[in-house]
Amino acid sequence: MTSSQPIDPARILSVNALAERLVARLVDQAARFGVTVTRTEGGSTIVDAGVDAPGGVEAGLLIARICMGGLGRVARRMSDDAEPFWPSLVEVHTSTPVLACLGSQYAGWSLSASKEETGGKKFFSLGSGPARALAVKEPLFDELGYRDRHDRGALVMEVDRLPPQIVIDKVLRDCALAPENLTIVVTPTHSVAGTVQVVARVVEVALHKTHVLGVDLAEIVEGSGTAPLPPPSPDGIQAMGRTNDAILYGGRVHLTVKHDAVAERLATELPSKNARDYGRPFAEIFTSFNYDFYQIDAALFAPAEVWVSSLESGATWHGGRIDDALLRSQWGKP
Amino acid sequence: MTSSQPIDPARILSVNALAERLVARLVDQAARFGVTVTRTEGGSTIVDAGVDAPGGVEAGLLIARICMGGLGRVARRMSDDAEPFWPSLVEVHTSTPVLACLGSQYAGWSLSASKEETGGKKFFSLGSGPARALAVKEPLFDELGYRDRHDRGALVMEVDRLPPQIVIDKVLRDCALAPENLTIVVTPTHSVAGTVQVVARVVEVALHKTHVLGVDLAEIVEGSGTAPLPPPSPDGIQAMGRTNDAILYGGRVHLTVKHDAVAERLATELPSKNARDYGRPFAEIFTSFNYDFYQIDAALFAPAEVWVSSLESGATWHGGRIDDALLRSQWGKP
Amino acid sequence: MTSSQPIDPARILSVNALAERLVARLVDQAARFGVTVTRTEGGSTIVDAGVDAPGGVEAGLLIARICMGGLGRVARRMSDDAEPFWPSLVEVHTSTPVLACLGSQYAGWSLSASKEETGGKKFFSLGSGPARALAVKEPLFDELGYRDRHDRGALVMEVDRLPPQIVIDKVLRDCALAPENLTIVVTPTHSVAGTVQVVARVVEVALHKTHVLGVDLAEIVEGSGTAPLPPPSPDGIQAMGRTNDAILYGGRVHLTVKHDAVAERLATELPSKNARDYGRPFAEIFTSFNYDFYQIDAALFAPAEVWVSSLESGATWHGGRIDDALLRSQWGKP
Repeated sequence: MTSSQPIDPARILSVNALAERLVARLVDQAARFGVTVTRTEGGSTIVDAGVDAPGGVEAGLLIARICMGGLGRVARRMSDDAEPFWPSLVEVHTSTPVLACLGSQYAGWSLSASKEETGGKKFFSLGSGPARALAVKEPLFDELGYRDRHDRGALVMEVDRLPPQIVIDKVLRDCALAPENLTIVVTPTHSVAGTVQVVARVVEVALHKTHVLGVDLAEIVEGSGTAPLPPPSPDGIQAMGRTNDAILYGGRVHLTVKHDAVAERLATELPSKNARDYGRPFAEIFTSFNYDFYQIDAALFAPAEVWVSSLESGATWHGGRIDDALLRSQWGKP
Repeated sequence: MTSSQPIDPARILSVNALAERLVARLVDQAARFGVTVTRTEGGSTIVDAGVDAPGGVEAGLLIARICMGGLGRVARRMSDDAEPFWPSLVEVHTSTPVLACLGSQYAGWSLSASKEETGGKKFFSLGSGPARALAVKEPLFDELGYRDRHDRGALVMEVDRLPPQIVIDKVLRDCALAPENLTIVVTPTHSVAGTVQVVARVVEVALHKTHVLGVDLAEIVEGSGTAPLPPPSPDGIQAMGRTNDAILYGGRVHLTVKHDAVAERLATELPSKNARDYGRPFAEIFTSFNYDFYQIDAALFAPAEVWVSSLESGATWHGGRIDDALLRSQWGKP
Repeated sequence: MTSSQPIDPARILSVNALAERLVARLVDQAARFGVTVTRTEGGSTIVDAGVDAPGGVEAGLLIARICMGGLGRVARRMSDDAEPFWPSLVEVHTSTPVLACLGSQYAGWSLSASKEETGGKKFFSLGSGPARALAVKEPLFDELGYRDRHDRGALVMEVDRLPPQIVIDKVLRDCALAPENLTIVVTPTHSVAGTVQVVARVVEVALHKTHVLGVDLAEIVEGSGTAPLPPPSPDGIQAMGRTNDAILYGGRVHLTVKHDAVAERLATELPSKNARDYGRPFAEIFTSFNYDFYQIDAALFAPAEVWVSSLESGATWHGGRIDDALLRSQWGKP
């Protein structure tokens, strides 16, 4: 044997390079995905996937794959239960869960502009997707030991209007990208594509809570998940409530970790039922705290049900349970 | 922002262009799909997917995607129910349901030739697939406001022999295609591929009934469906009965529409159980009416069970129920 | 009609040519698949998918597709049962089951080297995958009437170390390949990728038993299957036990055959429950026979539950039942 490639994926994989083909498909086939493509004066590409454009489930699935830096499989399926509590679901798989979910998909980059800066309304959005790993503005990237270097980048914004130029300029500067090499995809929470791409975060939510619990992320080697896919609510708070409920009360995740102690702990502590606020629809909880996210028990942001397999012994632990009654009561006929 | 693409997919998407790559795959990989490819003297391509060639499920799935003008996902799956009433099923998804199902997949183009014209047996087949949108011979296209223009076309015929030249000539003329740019795929009802491509019409059947009910097609924005996949019956009537039963008694569809009133109405009126003739196997109904389709209550042609989500309120209505006992009794061991 | 292609897939399909693109993907994207690629001095490519490299589920799925000579669909899914006995499963489909499973995927090529030959430890591995059809060293190929001719080849070895040069040389000689045109993929039983690629043999196991039962292989026209996907066990015997248990107690297969008598017979005789040793975990059985495979009733190597459809009548027979309690007790928490 004479040569060998290194195997730490974070060292060599470029989430922006891997997403490039998916971004090109979304832009080139805008009509079939129901999205509208515009260019800024500087040449940056803005994809409207639900502000004025209709978007759709297929757009949402592709955007979810872009969010995961091309390192996840994302599909919709219909349930084949004899009496399914919900007909449609989103399924996600990745063999590089930490890089795909936390290095790319996590909505961790705060992007805002004041009224003065926009010359109009205040703007705020969390940025997700591979361009985060070019900017590395979040402390999380130090922990991940990952920084992407690529001459093209894609960012997803869950917000109900297109970003002002000042925010685009900030992204370009932080990512060190030429204007024509940046694509920003905008998916409002109350849009179909926005709902899909948030529900597709079911594995990412599990990884983020794993991180919050202080578990070494190097433990996690495989991740799969499903969550029921509701239509969006036209109401902003309800729409956000739905995507959260889909994960907190309907999400299922199967992780594989390296050690038994971690598997056992995660099966116990990961499920959303451990949270003080568990049991009520998310919109109701959010409203009861006067729309202040930071009042909500962070432990709530987790899938309802988890299986955690350990490579140490080959055993699998199970915890939590989906609450189909809560979801049906929220999403059924009015 | 300086430029923008229009978003009405029917205006810009060419179902024949989108299907072209799929047609090429079927032809180029004929051996693996178990189909036989012949050329007419004029150079048109005829794909036998079950007349003399064996065809198969993979061929049927690819033909179903061709039928949908490249705008649908079609896959087979095995059920993972603890005790499934049927092991295999076909699953269909589209974010452009009206264009994919009615603008392309619907078998709405009557193609016939008399004994005199064929110099042999009378020929009759319904044409489906993207070439319908080149010919626009059906009033439905006026309602859809869609006409495809493309220099290549593909047509699927559910019939048990290859079409005579006079029918091919009619298709060429109506589609304004050069002979070498037309592909006709032939799938007998009693073949495996034929069964698959008909069962894969579960969403199309829901859309067609929606249209029959007089609902504005612009209401429908998403469509997903599943139906159990039986083997074909060697008997023509039974084979047709099976594919119909798969949808009428085993089909499930999840639609998303724009308004609550439409969703509520469709959940009530769409399921096949509303039809006078509901409850008996299709072959038995058809036989009891002396093989006269027009005697059968048109309301029967519908999936067994539907969910209809509305973007207006975000609510979802549910109606109908699959009848697994009827299917098991029809398809189980003799 | 003036020309026609032959339709016996075994005559024209090259499993090595069809797998070539998949092998290139595994090698070119080694980092994302967690595999390590090395070249021998002669230029042959060795892919470590679990010896020192971590591998992963995505690697295992791709290797399973390579094993099937590019003629199978292989995917992982999460169960959507209300209370699934196991969260993750592997699903396999093929419309050319005999060629894909027996002509390529079956681990039928014994490759060994003595201590003297290796200059170190004795080496033994069963070779599977498309290169078997270049070497045609097994009597099975006479029965299949299939021999592949292609200038590149891929072989999969389920073994816990990289093959010694003397074994590589034997493969090159028997396959008549230039050294630089051979790829060998190594997947230990106790690795994640190894577990996946063995569990993905659920349809192949059914076909092999069909062959053992003396049924004409030309009978079998379609094959689908699922099996639950456990994590590997770190213990070699337990790891082998798990992959076997996944199929023997959790595997489900749906075959389509040409004749009723065959379908009825297979539904009765195929399931693993017909075997004398059925009912105990495989590792326990294997241990009880002093690790001597040939003491185990060969009838045990079969899926737990089968459906067999016949094209003769269109009827479907069902036999066997998965034993979820046995699997849960073996794979659950310690």
